Amino acid sequence: MNFLILVRFGELWTKGKNRIEFINKLIENLKLIGRNVKFLRTRILLEGSLEKISKVPGVESASEGRIINRNLKEIKKEAKRLLGNSKTFAVRTKRIDKNFKYKSIEVNEIIGEYLSKFSKVNLENPEKIIGIEIFKDFAFVFDKTIRGPGGLPVGINGKCISLVSSGIDSPVSTWMMMRRGCEPIIIHYDINNSKVAFIRILEKLREYYPKLKYYVLPYGGIVSKYKVETRYWCLICKRIMVRIAQMIAEKENAKAIIMGDSLGQVASQTIDNIRIIEKVSKIPIFRPLIGLNKNEIIEYAKKIGTFELAENFKCPMVPKKPVTKGKLKLVERIESKLPIEKIIKEILRHSV
Amino acid sequence: MNFLILVRFGELWTKGKNRIEFINKLIENLKLIGRNVKFLRTRILLEGSLEKISKVPGVESASEGRIINRNLKEIKKEAKRLLGNSKTFAVRTKRIDKNFKYKSIEVNEIIGEYLSKFSKVNLENPEKIIGIEIFKDFAFVFDKTIRGPGGLPVGINGKCISLVSSGIDSPVSTWMMMRRGCEPIIIHYDINNSKVAFIRILEKLREYYPKLKYYVLPYGGIVSKYKVETRYWCLICKRIMVRIAQMIAEKENAKAIIMGDSLGQVASQTIDNIRIIEKVSKIPIFRPLIGLNKNEIIEYAKKIGTFELAENFKCPMVPKKPVTKGKLKLVERIESKLPIEKIIKEILRHSV
Repeated sequence: MNFLILVRFGELWTKGKNRIEFINKLIENLKLIGRNVKFLRTRILLEGSLEKISKVPGVESASEGRIINRNLKEIKKEAKRLLGNSKTFAVRTKRIDKNFKYKSIEVNEIIGEYLSKFSKVNLENPEKIIGIEIFKDFAFVFDKTIRGPGGLPVGINGKCISLVSSGIDSPVSTWMMMRRGCEPIIIHYDINNSKVAFIRILEKLREYYPKLKYYVLPYGGIVSKYKVETRYWCLICKRIMVRIAQMIAEKENAKAIIMGDSLGQVASQTIDNIRIIEKVSKIPIFRPLIGLNKNEIIEYAKKIGTFELAENFKCPMVPKKPVTKGKLKLVERIESKLPIEKIIKEILRHSV
Repeated sequence: MNFLILVRFGELWTKGKNRIEFINKLIENLKLIGRNVKFLRTRILLEGSLEKISKVPGVESASEGRIINRNLKEIKKEAKRLLGNSKTFAVRTKRIDKNFKYKSIEVNEIIGEYLSKFSKVNLENPEKIIGIEIFKDFAFVFDKTIRGPGGLPVGINGKCISLVSSGIDSPVSTWMMMRRGCEPIIIHYDINNSKVAFIRILEKLREYYPKLKYYVLPYGGIVSKYKVETRYWCLICKRIMVRIAQMIAEKENAKAIIMGDSLGQVASQTIDNIRIIEKVSKIPIFRPLIGLNKNEIIEYAKKIGTFELAENFKCPMVPKKPVTKGKLKLVERIESKLPIEKIIKEILRHSV
């Protein structure tokens, strides 16, 4: 008898057409990670690794257990097996099929009474929690549950371009928007071989969605040739990055750009500068970290698993005192003297 | 001997000119809530309520205690007084002035040994924590500390227009951007007397920054006169809201607009719709909730204290099936037949 994974999903998304879209996309994404995916109206059942499946955006929680006949004798037997030598336990039943003749609370009592011959009930802080879900044709009995990221399945809200560096922030902004249903197409601008750390980060993000697509663009070497000694260099550099992002967005049919800005995290992340950078984009820029403190971003990065993979990246081209309140006209004047289109073409030609 | 509040701040913001700006703004904001504010290089000392002061953005933590002479005899006496009848305790010292002849760890030992005559040391989980900070001219001894919101002082990153409804989300987006240094100027569009709940929310947000400015605009009654029976109504309505926000931004010299959108939270919060709404804005739109799940937003709202004040607002003008993938051209065509400018003028004329 094999172990299976039971997936709970989208409790807040239970309306009409959206619900069907949600479920279809979630099933599609689960198929990338597990096998024999079966849809049970309010649950999904599949084969695979609990740890991996519980990472999929849209999954509220996942449990590993076994399918057995839905009669009390069989349930008792499996519950006893799971109990093992645990000193304390609790039984938590959910009757999915309301036609089952015992109510959830009655199943708790019956199974609990049986198990109390071998162990002690402790509803507050049990060593072992035995979960039972009663379906139409079987019961699912389990003792391992992992909470998922919740949110929406990747792709249900369309494609976005996400700019990802080798640092802490942008992998978090990417993950957050994946969890809100975006399918990110990642652009990494390679500066000083930052792509090594980036690839590690990419592999981690792929645990949440294996089909993540990416571009590595050789940025530093090309742009530094044109380096202007100016406090405006960072702004111009970011505007080049966003211009390229938008060209790739058009090609990939992506509808927005995701960036890892947090307002005021460094002195140059000001509203004035954000406005100047945004001016070159015709599509919305999502900045899910804009209102977060650094410690909150770090907490997310640790939870996602990208924190340890990030490098403390310092761009070698950053001037000593980058401008904090940029003026758009001045930026445009400096740019008019630079071969922006040529730079972009050169970067795109070397795309990896 | 009066109780004073000691404020710790901005551990991540310790560089040059920004540090001075940060501190000046924080002191300015603390003066709105406390009295006799004194700056001690790495700390701020003031009179007032610990609970209120610990809410101010930029404050990492605040402690309530007393100033005494910096000699061991006095410290022992005050520590003993704070110990009271506590069964277990720990002493945690920080020597701010490195010229004090005992190191922090030595003060811990000396005071701890003295107190252990009356109570029991427990470093892991003490009933009472006695805090001691040694300054140049005095010692500050305390037993109450509250964590603050951290982040940046309100106003250091300029003004923003924030659209606040009577629901759960937009008070959170406003608070988050306050914590990143924005001074929000709030616009509430009054629909079906939603302003009653809004005013309660405003009062709560003012606990974090008392000078919050706001506009209440009588929206529902005016706009519903022009109601078009169309799935596009929500998009047009939001574009009117953003147009007005921008007019007020110009008047108030605000540099961005804050909105409470979370991608996909409702079926109409799609990238296509966000893009159409954003098109009428010339300044950046910050959406700090764009990547958060509803349960995370609710957690913030509870922490901020606005959750219980929000109402379950349902706009009476929302059509049964609002469009999920709006087309910009169609929106513009419908708008060309509406007296948009007249509607806006009428709303602004009745501004409260």
